Amino acid sequence: MAPQLDGFFKQVDDSTDHFIDRLRRAVAIPSISAEEARRPDVIRMGEWLADELKALGAEVELRPLGEQPGKPGLDLPPVILARYGNDKNKRTILVYGHYDVQPADKSDGWATEPFELTVDDKGRMFGRGSTDDKGPVLGWVNAIEAHQKAGVDFPVNLLMCFEGMEEYGSEGLEELIVAEGKKYFADADAVCISDNYWLGTEKPCLTYGLRGCNYYSIEVSGPGADLHSGVFGGTAQEPMTDLVKIMSQLVSNDGKILIPGIMDQVAPVTAEEDALYNDIAFTMDNLYESLGSKTSIFEDKKQTLMGRWRYPSLSLHGIEGAFSSPGAKTVIPAKVVGKFSIRTVPNMEIDRTNELVCSYIQERFAELTSKNTLKVFPQHSGKWWAASPNHWNFSAAAKAVERVWNVKPDFTREGGSIPVTISFEEATGKNVLLLPMGSSTDGAHSINEKLDKRNYIEGIKLLGAYLHYVAEEPIA
Amino acid sequence: MAPQLDGFFKQVDDSTDHFIDRLRRAVAIPSISAEEARRPDVIRMGEWLADELKALGAEVELRPLGEQPGKPGLDLPPVILARYGNDKNKRTILVYGHYDVQPADKSDGWATEPFELTVDDKGRMFGRGSTDDKGPVLGWVNAIEAHQKAGVDFPVNLLMCFEGMEEYGSEGLEELIVAEGKKYFADADAVCISDNYWLGTEKPCLTYGLRGCNYYSIEVSGPGADLHSGVFGGTAQEPMTDLVKIMSQLVSNDGKILIPGIMDQVAPVTAEEDALYNDIAFTMDNLYESLGSKTSIFEDKKQTLMGRWRYPSLSLHGIEGAFSSPGAKTVIPAKVVGKFSIRTVPNMEIDRTNELVCSYIQERFAELTSKNTLKVFPQHSGKWWAASPNHWNFSAAAKAVERVWNVKPDFTREGGSIPVTISFEEATGKNVLLLPMGSSTDGAHSINEKLDKRNYIEGIKLLGAYLHYVAEEPIA
Repeated sequence: MAPQLDGFFKQVDDSTDHFIDRLRRAVAIPSISAEEARRPDVIRMGEWLADELKALGAEVELRPLGEQPGKPGLDLPPVILARYGNDKNKRTILVYGHYDVQPADKSDGWATEPFELTVDDKGRMFGRGSTDDKGPVLGWVNAIEAHQKAGVDFPVNLLMCFEGMEEYGSEGLEELIVAEGKKYFADADAVCISDNYWLGTEKPCLTYGLRGCNYYSIEVSGPGADLHSGVFGGTAQEPMTDLVKIMSQLVSNDGKILIPGIMDQVAPVTAEEDALYNDIAFTMDNLYESLGSKTSIFEDKKQTLMGRWRYPSLSLHGIEGAFSSPGAKTVIPAKVVGKFSIRTVPNMEIDRTNELVCSYIQERFAELTSKNTLKVFPQHSGKWWAASPNHWNFSAAAKAVERVWNVKPDFTREGGSIPVTISFEEATGKNVLLLPMGSSTDGAHSINEKLDKRNYIEGIKLLGAYLHYVAEEPIA
Repeated sequence: MAPQLDGFFKQVDDSTDHFIDRLRRAVAIPSISAEEARRPDVIRMGEWLADELKALGAEVELRPLGEQPGKPGLDLPPVILARYGNDKNKRTILVYGHYDVQPADKSDGWATEPFELTVDDKGRMFGRGSTDDKGPVLGWVNAIEAHQKAGVDFPVNLLMCFEGMEEYGSEGLEELIVAEGKKYFADADAVCISDNYWLGTEKPCLTYGLRGCNYYSIEVSGPGADLHSGVFGGTAQEPMTDLVKIMSQLVSNDGKILIPGIMDQVAPVTAEEDALYNDIAFTMDNLYESLGSKTSIFEDKKQTLMGRWRYPSLSLHGIEGAFSSPGAKTVIPAKVVGKFSIRTVPNMEIDRTNELVCSYIQERFAELTSKNTLKVFPQHSGKWWAASPNHWNFSAAAKAVERVWNVKPDFTREGGSIPVTISFEEATGKNVLLLPMGSSTDGAHSINEKLDKRNYIEGIKLLGAYLHYVAEEPIA
C-alpha cells in the first residue's frame, strides 16, 4: 500500500519560508571545524541544533568527545545523539549528518557574505554549509516538524547522529560509532546518510558504492640540511632528483597505474553493472563543466564513469620539503616527501596494495643507485565500500524518489570516500544508503556554495517519504 | 719594495678589543632587509656606518634609492657612497660591502642571542652579520683607523659602496652602479669585494670566478580549479603527472644534465687550470662536513671542485601550486609550476641556454600528448663571471695574503653567484677581486653565524696590506 503522503507534502510546501529561515539561522553560525578560533561557534551550532530537536520532542544528548588530539585545552565539539520515537512496532532508522562546515571568507572570492544565506532569483540559496551539510541535517528536523504540523503519524523511530568535526577528519567519531553500535544504535534496522550529491543537476540518485583511499608518502633524504644550489649543485646527489624520478613512474598521463599487480585485484565488470551505465544522467559536458576544461582522460561517458568510481586511480598531490612558494629560491632541499594516493575499489585489499606499492617504489629507487635514503609508507588507508542496491533500504528510497521527483533514480557509486559509511555499516551490521539532497553544481567545498531551493524543499519531502516507504518495505 | 706594514699591523693588534667592540655595536642593530618591520633598523645601521666613516674623515653620502618596488610607502635603505683620500698620485680602489643581514631569531635554534655578539673560548664571535658582511665592511673602517692611529700614510684613495639590501636582491643597486660607473666610481683603478668565504678553514683564497644562474619555471595547467582526487581521479589528465614526467628528464642523479647542447658550450679545461686543483686546500671530508652526509656525486676532490665551480649543474628546487604541507590532502592541483635552475659557466650563453632548455622541455611535453597546457620560461638569468687571476689586482692581493698569513692563497672560483661583481666589472671596466675574510664554517645564512676572531683581526691586516700592495703593484 502506497503511503499517504499528501498531507505531509502540502505542509512542507506551506512551510517553505519557515524552513528556509531555519537554514538561514543555521548558516549564520560559522561552525568552521578546521579553525581553532571558531570552535565556540561549532559548539554553539551543535547546541542550537540540539535545541531545535528538543523543541520537537526528541530525546537529545550532547556527547562530549574530550580534547582534540594534539591540542591540549581544545575540546572537540559534541556529537549530537537523538531519538525521535520509541515504538517497538516501528522500524528504526539511523541517520547521520554533520553540523560543521568548511572554512569560508568573503575575501576568498565569494560573491555574497558566506555566513548570510542569500537567495537569488533562480532560487539558488548561497551560503557556507547550505548544501554541506546543514541543508540535509535540517531536512530531517523539518520532516519531523512537518509531520507534527500536518498531524501525520511519524512512520519510524528515528535515531540521529550529527557530528561537528566532519570537515576536519571526523576526529573522535569512529570510536563513538564503534562503542554505540550495539548500544545507542542497537535497534537500528537500516542507516541513511544524506551527505553527498547528485551526479548531475536534474536527476536524483541513490549511491551504493564509494572508493577507498590509500595515501602514501615517499621520503627521500640526503644532506643534513637544505643546501645552496650555487655552492653544492654539481657535487651532491639531490633528493629531489631521485623523488621526481620515482614519482614519474607511478602513473601515466592517461591514468594507467604503472605499479604491477594493482589492476589484477579489480573486480571484473559484470553484465548487470555494464547495463547500468547507459541510463545514467551524465554527459561529457557535465564533466567538462565541473573540470572547467576539456582535459579529460576519456571521450565517452561510460569510460568516464567507470574511471571515476569502479576503477582505481592514482593522483600525485605534491611534495613537502621542497620550495613551494611563488618566486625563485635556489635551494637544494635536504629532505623531500612526495605525496600520492590510490583510490581503491572492489576487490582490492589494503595490505596487498600497500605491499605492491612499497616494493615497486623500493625497486625503482634501487635502480637509481642513489646514495640518498628512501622511506616509503602508507600515511593512511581507507577501505572502499559497496552496498547491495537491491536491499529494501534502497528499494524504499527508490520508491520515494519516484514519488517526489517522478523519475527513477540513478544507482550510482562515487569516486571519493565517506569513511563514516563503513563505520556505520561495520558497527551496526546494517545496510547503509547514501541519499543525497544537493546537486553536482552546489560547490560543497568551494566558494559560493549553494543549495537550490527546489532541492531543499523537495529534499525534505524525499527524506520524509523515504521514512514512510522504508517503514513498509518488505524484506527482499 | 715591500711595503712597511709593521706599524699598521701592531696598531691592529693593539686595537683588537676596540675593533671587536665596533663589530659588537654593528651586530646589535638588527638590520634585516627582508623584514619590512625592520626597515628602520636597516636605515639606522646605514646611518651608524656613515657616522663611523665621517668620524674618520671620509666624505660620505647616503644615497636614497626611493621606494621599494611593489611596496608603496616603504623606502629602500640608502646606499652609502664614501671616499677616503683624493690624491691624484695614488691609485684609487673601489670596495663594496653590505650592512644588511639575513633574518635571525633566537627561536630558530640559535645558541646565543643573534644580535648580541658573543665570543666563546675558541675565539668564535657569534652574531647575525658577524661574517656576512658587517665584519668585512668594518674591516675597511678599521684599516683606515689603524693607519691614522699608527701614523702610517694611507696608500690609496678608497672609494666605498655599502648597500643595505643585499640579502633581499640588492634592490636598486644595479641602476646606481651603472649610473655612477663613470661618475662617482670614475677614477677607480680596480675593485675589491669582501663578501665571500675561504674554501675551507685554514687557507685564505682569492676568488676569480663565479657561476651564473638561469632560473626556470615549467607551468602545467589543465582544470579550472583544484580538484578532489576522489571525484576526478581517473577521469582527468592531471597536470602534476605531466610536470613530474618532464622534471624527471632534466638531470640524472649523478648530476648529468640531460638537455642536449648545454655541455657543448662549456669551455674545456686547460692544462693551466688543471694544474691548479691539486694544491687547493680542500678535502672530501670538508665536503662531507658541509653536506652533513656522504651523499656526494664524486669520490675525489678534483672532480668535486670542478663540479662545484667549472661545470654547469641543474637543481630541481620544488613545485608551486601542489600540496606542500605536512599531512595528507587529496587534491589534484589544477596548475603546478616546477622550478629549477642551471648554474652556468664559461662560455655558456644565456640566450642559447634558455633556447635549448625551453625547446627540450616543449619536446618532452609534446611526447606526452597531453591535453594540459605547458608554459616554460626563464624567471631570471644571471651571467657567470670569470676574471683574470693574473691581473695586478690579484697579484697584489696574493702578496698581501702571503705577508699576513705566511701562505700562498688558493685561487678559487665559486659555484654561486654574486651579481654585484659583474655589475661593478661592467660599470667600471676594471678588474674585480673577491677577497674573503671569513671561513667556510661561518654559516653565513644559517643559525649561529660567526666570524673567528683570528679571521677578523688578521682580515683587517689583510685588507690594509692589500691596499699597500695594490698601490705599488706594477701593471703586468
